Amino acid sequence: SKPWLTFFCCQLIALSGVSERRRGLAQEKMTENGVFSRDKVLTIDTMNPTVKNVEYAVRGPIVQRAIQIEKELREGVKKPFTEVIKANIGDAHAMGQQPITFFRQVLALCSYPELLNENMFPEDAKNRARRILQACGGGSVGAYSASQGIDCVRQDVARYIERRDGGVPCDPDNVYLTTGASDGIVTMLKLLVCGEGASRTGVMISIPQYPLYSAALAELGAVQVNYYLNEEKCWSMDLSELERSLAEARKHCNPKALCIINPGNPTGQVQSRQCIEDVIRFAAKERLFLMADEVYQDNVYAEGCQFHSFKKVLFELGPEYSDNVELASFHSTSKCYMGECGFRGGYMEVINMDPEVQAQLSKLVSVRLCPPVPGQALMDLVVNSPQPGEPSHTTFMKERTATLSLLAEKAKLTEQILNTVPGITCNPVQGAMYSFPNISLPEKSIKEAKALGQAPDMFYCMKLLEETGICLVPGSGFGQKDGTYHFRSGHPSLLKHFITAFHILRWV
Amino acid sequence: SKPWLTFFCCQLIALSGVSERRRGLAQEKMTENGVFSRDKVLTIDTMNPTVKNVEYAVRGPIVQRAIQIEKELREGVKKPFTEVIKANIGDAHAMGQQPITFFRQVLALCSYPELLNENMFPEDAKNRARRILQACGGGSVGAYSASQGIDCVRQDVARYIERRDGGVPCDPDNVYLTTGASDGIVTMLKLLVCGEGASRTGVMISIPQYPLYSAALAELGAVQVNYYLNEEKCWSMDLSELERSLAEARKHCNPKALCIINPGNPTGQVQSRQCIEDVIRFAAKERLFLMADEVYQDNVYAEGCQFHSFKKVLFELGPEYSDNVELASFHSTSKCYMGECGFRGGYMEVINMDPEVQAQLSKLVSVRLCPPVPGQALMDLVVNSPQPGEPSHTTFMKERTATLSLLAEKAKLTEQILNTVPGITCNPVQGAMYSFPNISLPEKSIKEAKALGQAPDMFYCMKLLEETGICLVPGSGFGQKDGTYHFRSGHPSLLKHFITAFHILRWV
Repeated sequence: SKPWLTFFCCQLIALSGVSERRRGLAQEKMTENGVFSRDKVLTIDTMNPTVKNVEYAVRGPIVQRAIQIEKELREGVKKPFTEVIKANIGDAHAMGQQPITFFRQVLALCSYPELLNENMFPEDAKNRARRILQACGGGSVGAYSASQGIDCVRQDVARYIERRDGGVPCDPDNVYLTTGASDGIVTMLKLLVCGEGASRTGVMISIPQYPLYSAALAELGAVQVNYYLNEEKCWSMDLSELERSLAEARKHCNPKALCIINPGNPTGQVQSRQCIEDVIRFAAKERLFLMADEVYQDNVYAEGCQFHSFKKVLFELGPEYSDNVELASFHSTSKCYMGECGFRGGYMEVINMDPEVQAQLSKLVSVRLCPPVPGQALMDLVVNSPQPGEPSHTTFMKERTATLSLLAEKAKLTEQILNTVPGITCNPVQGAMYSFPNISLPEKSIKEAKALGQAPDMFYCMKLLEETGICLVPGSGFGQKDGTYHFRSGHPSLLKHFITAFHILRWV
Repeated sequence: SKPWLTFFCCQLIALSGVSERRRGLAQEKMTENGVFSRDKVLTIDTMNPTVKNVEYAVRGPIVQRAIQIEKELREGVKKPFTEVIKANIGDAHAMGQQPITFFRQVLALCSYPELLNENMFPEDAKNRARRILQACGGGSVGAYSASQGIDCVRQDVARYIERRDGGVPCDPDNVYLTTGASDGIVTMLKLLVCGEGASRTGVMISIPQYPLYSAALAELGAVQVNYYLNEEKCWSMDLSELERSLAEARKHCNPKALCIINPGNPTGQVQSRQCIEDVIRFAAKERLFLMADEVYQDNVYAEGCQFHSFKKVLFELGPEYSDNVELASFHSTSKCYMGECGFRGGYMEVINMDPEVQAQLSKLVSVRLCPPVPGQALMDLVVNSPQPGEPSHTTFMKERTATLSLLAEKAKLTEQILNTVPGITCNPVQGAMYSFPNISLPEKSIKEAKALGQAPDMFYCMKLLEETGICLVPGSGFGQKDGTYHFRSGHPSLLKHFITAFHILRWV
């Protein structure tokens, strides 16, 4: 930005004889502005090529443009709207969801234990905080925990899983606390990937998928094996499609794992018990390691739908399956009624993992020292929430129910509103936190997009952002059947939602 | 654990005809106990081989045994000691260091903003909390932040760096908040690694090193290029050794980066300004990307020693260097006077990074969504601590000074005590948080260790643990010159420290 200054300095260096030494520097050149500059050591051509293959649409170009527009609005640039509505991400608190009072009280007590002497906190909050602090080195959440997570938190997680799954036993030694679910998923994929060429590890993921999976697989250089969800049947999983996908993949790689997101992201379906059973039998027959992403396990809205954990169904199928099928399941503090994304709390449970591999897993997680301790504390509160008879129970239940009802209401409204828009078809949102409607785009727009080298739904979402301030993620970021177009929308607050629909209506 | 139950179930399955379906399962076998079992999909032979190569001594076998011993003590097993003293890790709070009151007040306020209405908190704590909350989506630390970190925190970090470096400019866009320093270091290494065979990326690291580096390089399949610190000259860096190491490495890989830990871990040296200058000139001449791990920047104890950031020295060398040499520097909330390891806060600053590569870096960090927000808040407080005139300033300074003095005192005492033990020689601990003394082991012990297939210093540390309860990390976990033996010891509280020395004395 100050070429004259650099030029002046360079002249000075040249005069002072420093230029003698400079001759030793390789690949240097004089630019137009008189600045000496070398080629960089690290360039787009010399960097890790697998990193270049990573794509993550949820925070991709649309979101970057949205951030720019927000800045322009602050600077007074006139737009047809006054506010950017970020529906690109499932970020509940950013959308106005209130945190659970009890959780935040305990976290404040853990952060500043002096507060244990104050009368303003209920006894159960204080007891939870004392218990967590006692489990921390030096009684401080500022100490490292064990790499696998604080012992008593893992025990509480195990008891939670047992309750959830009707008594199926859970060994705390199989529970690993994580930095959000993403961390656990990437760690598991890392263990699985090996081989080269036709024996390279393949990992089956649904299309549409949550792009963490494609991003992690690209980074690890694994083969992404797509199986398509059936949009006509409310995004269900078809056994025949799994079979087709696997047979296809076996021609060019070694498929070793099958990932399922239930309730679905971005597609919002909740899988039936029968479907989960079929998937488990398929995995057993075909020798696939199962990865069940169950972070939306409390987000089930549609009547007749119910969350079934893969683990529970696995054990109900009998020891033939429960003794053999390898499963990792993931949970998080970021979704459900908590929505505490910023704390990066989560856990994974591994089932039937080879003990030698599990020792390697334990070693691997130790390199990163430990998951954030406040996130571990929060995970503990989620799995060990106020019980009937405890002073915070009533408020906790009221807040939890209100949040889940509001989420259910928004899901229903979104579906209804989107389906009133010509050209948009939205499946029932049975669970999770998003809609993933199908959009018919005019031939003209598709051509215009292709001329610009853009995916047509990216073109659509970009236009929508520029004209209405609504930030969505194009379906191409999640994957979709060729020739179909979608977007993923989070469920912002009701009023904003109507505005969204109104604007979409104008544009299609 | 219940073989009879499994056996019974298997019989039931066989009778019920399920066994028909079982024939479809590949590689199944009947074990001694009558349990049907398949080979696992994921075994030690089929898992990612680079993960197997990872070693991380700081949480390795010694620490695992220490945890077992703690359990045995709780169960009443008699030992020659009553408590395990964990000196294996720089975990200040676990060793009794007290958190900074101001930091914890602000964190409590951020966690539970209701507390902003209470009179018990000083105004400056409330103001900091309000500012952080305003920068969070929905005013909640439970919202995701931008992937690079909260804007205003990155701005505060940039101003801190400018103050620290005597006005050298820092662009907040070059600051990335991280999940502890480890996260930043691994991310940078990930960008750098590429190529195969003789063109595979090599990364130069000091020996002894902090094993995060060797672990990350093993996982990424990069080539670890060792340069040895000079123990005779208080673990200084010799230019001739850098040259030897590089020339050697170029025969079999493509060395692209040079990592420096200053103040040193595990070796506790503080590099002179001259040394840093030499290293920068060397990196410029040899075209190496510099990675400066500066997490102990406030932990400087020895008289005549001073912390010089690589960035400051880089800029003082003039535009020939400051316009060209690529540098990433790392800081953390875990060390210095804070010791807040559990929050996993940190930042990295990148300098002269190719803009295309930086765009890739920004994309890469977005996949993990964001660093933990409480850790980001804490990082903000560290770089934006109470100022003179603010109500918390006096207490903050008192606490900060007391902690740093105590750390300095412990460092001095450790060095003195260790040097009174026959067979142990300890360099002056100029900074950081560890001693790394040289131990002469009796020929008999070395033979005994080798017969057991153990590194002799691992054998020593294991004996020490079993006989005295003191948990240290053997030098072999950090690397050392062949035929020399060391251990790394954190600096536990004073009394414990004397006991440590006493026991070591008995055993050597």
